[in-house]
Order: sequence, then C-alpha cells, then structure tokens
Amino acid sequence: MDELLIFLTYVAVAASSISGALEARKRQMDLVGAITIAYVTAFGGGTVRDLLLGRTPVFWMADPALTVAAFVLALVAFYRFDRVSRKLLIVADAVGLGLFSILGATYAFQFNLSPIIAVHMGVVTGIFGGVLRDVLSNQIPQVFGQSAELYATCSFVGTTLFIVLYFYHLSSMSVAAVVGASVIFAMRLLAARFKVTLPSP
Amino acid sequence: MDELLIFLTYVAVAASSISGALEARKRQMDLVGAITIAYVTAFGGGTVRDLLLGRTPVFWMADPALTVAAFVLALVAFYRFDRVSRKLLIVADAVGLGLFSILGATYAFQFNLSPIIAVHMGVVTGIFGGVLRDVLSNQIPQVFGQSAELYATCSFVGTTLFIVLYFYHLSSMSVAAVVGASVIFAMRLLAARFKVTLPSP
Amino acid sequence: MDELLIFLTYVAVAASSISGALEARKRQMDLVGAITIAYVTAFGGGTVRDLLLGRTPVFWMADPALTVAAFVLALVAFYRFDRVSRKLLIVADAVGLGLFSILGATYAFQFNLSPIIAVHMGVVTGIFGGVLRDVLSNQIPQVFGQSAELYATCSFVGTTLFIVLYFYHLSSMSVAAVVGASVIFAMRLLAARFKVTLPSP
Repeated sequence: MDELLIFLTYVAVAASSISGALEARKRQMDLVGAITIAYVTAFGGGTVRDLLLGRTPVFWMADPALTVAAFVLALVAFYRFDRVSRKLLIVADAVGLGLFSILGATYAFQFNLSPIIAVHMGVVTGIFGGVLRDVLSNQIPQVFGQSAELYATCSFVGTTLFIVLYFYHLSSMSVAAVVGASVIFAMRLLAARFKVTLPSP
Repeated sequence: MDELLIFLTYVAVAASSISGALEARKRQMDLVGAITIAYVTAFGGGTVRDLLLGRTPVFWMADPALTVAAFVLALVAFYRFDRVSRKLLIVADAVGLGLFSILGATYAFQFNLSPIIAVHMGVVTGIFGGVLRDVLSNQIPQVFGQSAELYATCSFVGTTLFIVLYFYHLSSMSVAAVVGASVIFAMRLLAARFKVTLPSP
Repeated sequence: MDELLIFLTYVAVAASSISGALEARKRQMDLVGAITIAYVTAFGGGTVRDLLLGRTPVFWMADPALTVAAFVLALVAFYRFDRVSRKLLIVADAVGLGLFSILGATYAFQFNLSPIIAVHMGVVTGIFGGVLRDVLSNQIPQVFGQSAELYATCSFVGTTLFIVLYFYHLSSMSVAAVVGASVIFAMRLLAARFKVTLPSP
C-alpha cells in the first residue's frame, strides 16, 4: 500500500514537472524558468498547504529524492520533449489531483481542524500548484477560466465525499480515501473528455 | 464590544467577498475563480500577516463560519448581483481597512515586535487582500497605481496614530484602537470622495 | 568580520530597494507601490526562505533598522533619482546574490536538511526577491527569460561549491563561505559583462 502511494506520488510529480517545463518553454523562458515552474507546479499546492497549517520545514525538504526527480525531468522535458502526449499528461495529472486532495484533507484532520476546513485544504493542495505556475507565467490561472474543464470542482466533490464517509464513520479511513481519490480521478477524466465546465453567470 | 467586533468583521468580509467575486466575473472567470478570488480578497491580508508572524494554522482555519459566509456570498454575488452599489462596497471595505489594520498591529505586539514592525503588520493586513486579488487576476495591484486614491496611506497613518497613543501610554489600548480605526475609516472615505492621490515623481 | 557582513547586507539591501523603487516608477506606480516593490525585492528571497523553513517571525521583523533603510532609500529613489548607474546597481546586487545565497544554505544546515535542499535554499534566497518583484509588477520574472544573463545559475554553482567544500570537510565553514560567495559575485559580474545566457531548447 505504501509502495503504491509512493509510486503514485512520483507519477503525479512527473506529470507536473513535465507540464511545468513545457509551459516554461511555451512562454520563452530559459532553464531556470523551466525548473522553477516545474517545482512550483509539482510542489506548490502541498507547499501552500504546509505553510497555512504550519507544517515546516515544508514536505519536499524532507525528501530530496522528489526534488531531484522533478529537476531531472524538467531538464530533459525542457530540452528534449518535442511532442508529449497531452492525454498521458492529463491522466497522470488526474492521479495527482485525486491523491493530493485526499492527502491534504487528512493533514487538516491531524491539526484537529473542522471538516469544512479539511475540504479547503484538499482543494488548495490539489489546485495551487497550477495556480502558482500560471501566476509565475504571468497568466490568469487556467483553473479560473470560464472555458476550463472541471478541475477544482472534482477535488471539491471527491474530498467532500471522503470527509463525509470518514467523519461520519461510514467507512474506514483507507476505504474512504480510495473512494474519494477514485471519484476525483474519474470525474476529472470525464470532465476533460466531455469538456464539462461550470455554468457562467 | 466583542459582538460589535464580530459584526464589523463580517461586514468587512462580506464587502471583500462580493468585490472579489465581481472582479472575477469582470475578468471572465468561472465560479472556482470567483470563490478563490473572494477568499483571497477577504482573507489574504490576515493570512500573509499570520504566515510572516508564524501564527499557524492561520486565522480563518479556526473559524469555518467566516469561510462559509465568504463562500455563499461569493456564489450569490457571482451569479446574481448585476448592480452592486459601488459606494456601499467602498464604505464596507473601509470598515475592514480600519479594523484589520489595527488588529494586525496588535498581533505584532503580542510577538513583542517593535512599533515600526507593528505599523508594517497593520498595513500588510489592510492591503494584501487586494494585492493578492490583483496578482491572481493578472493585474498590477490597484493600490500601487498612480491614480489610486489613498488606501495603504490611510492604514499607515491610522496604525501609526494607534501605536503612538498606545505605546507612549497616551491612552488605553481600546481608546487608541477606536481612534486609529476611525481615522483610517474617515480618511479612506474622504480620499475616495475627493479622489486624493499621492504625488507622482 | 561581523561588521563586514552587516555592511555588505546594507549594500545589498540598498541596491534592491533602489532598483525596486525605480522599477515601480517605470511601471507607473505610486509611492505605495514603490515602497512595497522595494521591500519585496530586498526582503522577498529571505522571507520565502524563512517561511519554507518555519523561521518565524521572519528575519526582517527582528531588525527594524533594515526596514527603515529600505523605506527611506525607496522614497528618495522614487522621487529624486533620475539617473542611477546601472553598473553600480549590478555590482551591489551581485554582492547580495553571493551573500544571501550562502546565508540561505547555512540556515538549511541549521535545520539538518540535506545538502541538496541547502543548495535550493541558497538559490531561493538569492533569486526570489526579484521573482516576487516581477510578479507584483505583472511581468514574467526576468530571471526566467531566455535573454537573461546568468543569475540563478551563479547562485547554484557558488552555493554548490560552498556546500561541497564544507560538507566534505575540505575547508572550514568560513573559508567555504568566502569562496562560494566570491565565485557567485565574480560569475555574476562576468555573465552580465559578457551577456552569458543558458542555452535555449
């Protein structure tokens, strides 16, 4: 189980680093930009979560292997990846969205915070990597756009489900986590496939 | 007194959430953008203050009711508010500027920081909600513009007055706080009414 | 030695404040913008470092003299400096890049973090002032640009050298620090003089 979690974490970090580096190339940045954007995309959500909670030094400082993996992948992607399967990136990114949303919520519980705040921690962990990537790239965050397919919403729904299942003792924590993360993963892929967006005003 | 403080806090959070959601609509964002911008406008200044001081988990995590209020107001404002009185928003926002500036300075005293730093904490608490709103909306922060009516300056003047009164024992803390917050409130409204700006170079 | 460090710190803070205030003027900001951008340029890197490590209240709160110096310099530069020697600013800024990179790495060691993370803390401390300045000015960070002369790279090389020398006991900490900082300083000036950039993809 732990090995699966670690594997999934690396899958998600890989997707974020590669997409960050490619975004940097698209925006005419150099390698420094590519690596910084890769880090921010991969670790930004968890970093904001840790700062808000006061979990310092933040998580990636305790695990240099993750940082090295993101560094190498960003370097290679920046100079060598001419065509990356957009579909593959979306699938790998959806793995991370599910995983990190649930993880963010469980950290909130460790600090005895209310379920409402736990949902917020899940969503923040899930989306702020992309938000900070776009801020550093001088763009309005993609997840805020009216044409953006559901992303934060998937995290919100799945994290809420996880919390309801767990908080009201409807299932064990691990079952609730697997259900929540799977719902986020599936909902995100469906939203991307069928271009589902939130209603505009 | 405590009930008055709570009431004024909700007034200020309401103004920030609504103006954040309307800004998001103006910038073609979806509901995720509207709620995030509303949160950032309402809680951003206090969050930056808490992070700089090390007061974690940050303030809004301890009080889910504030978050729920901001969520609901942003949702309603985003979909339903076609015309909001700009004057009313400015008045409610000025309430928050006065309140949160003084509150920020008092937190600095709790950490035994110098009066100079306390002024900075007041101003940061007062203005960084709007600054982060504009950064996430991909704009130069409005409070930095040469045509911007006095905003940070009101916070600076009133917070300094509060600190001088309190630090040199010229009045009790609560009298100093009421004087400081009132000066900020009045100065902000006068600046908005008469379009007072800082001199340009 | 300590007096030299303090002197060099003020040199670097002066350069950052002045360049921040001039950037604000170029971007049509008012005095509030100038002072905020000056602070962010001068203290942003160290603040991000302290937040990530959990060293709160952050460093500049303990030393109001630095803040006052940055305030006064930004005020004067904003209204009065019509022509500032760009060369002088680059030299003074390079002093800060060397100094703060090494300082950032040593703080990481105080938290028993790995050498890999210590390099990152050095680079973050060195470059994030400028990154945040550009984010608040609504620009893609200059250090990420393909035409940007080496900056983060100098910090990376010199900090790595410092860490190798110190971590493998090849020299005392102070000798390693002087070597590392000098390499950063010299490499930065050479890169600026000969317009050295990283290879583009």
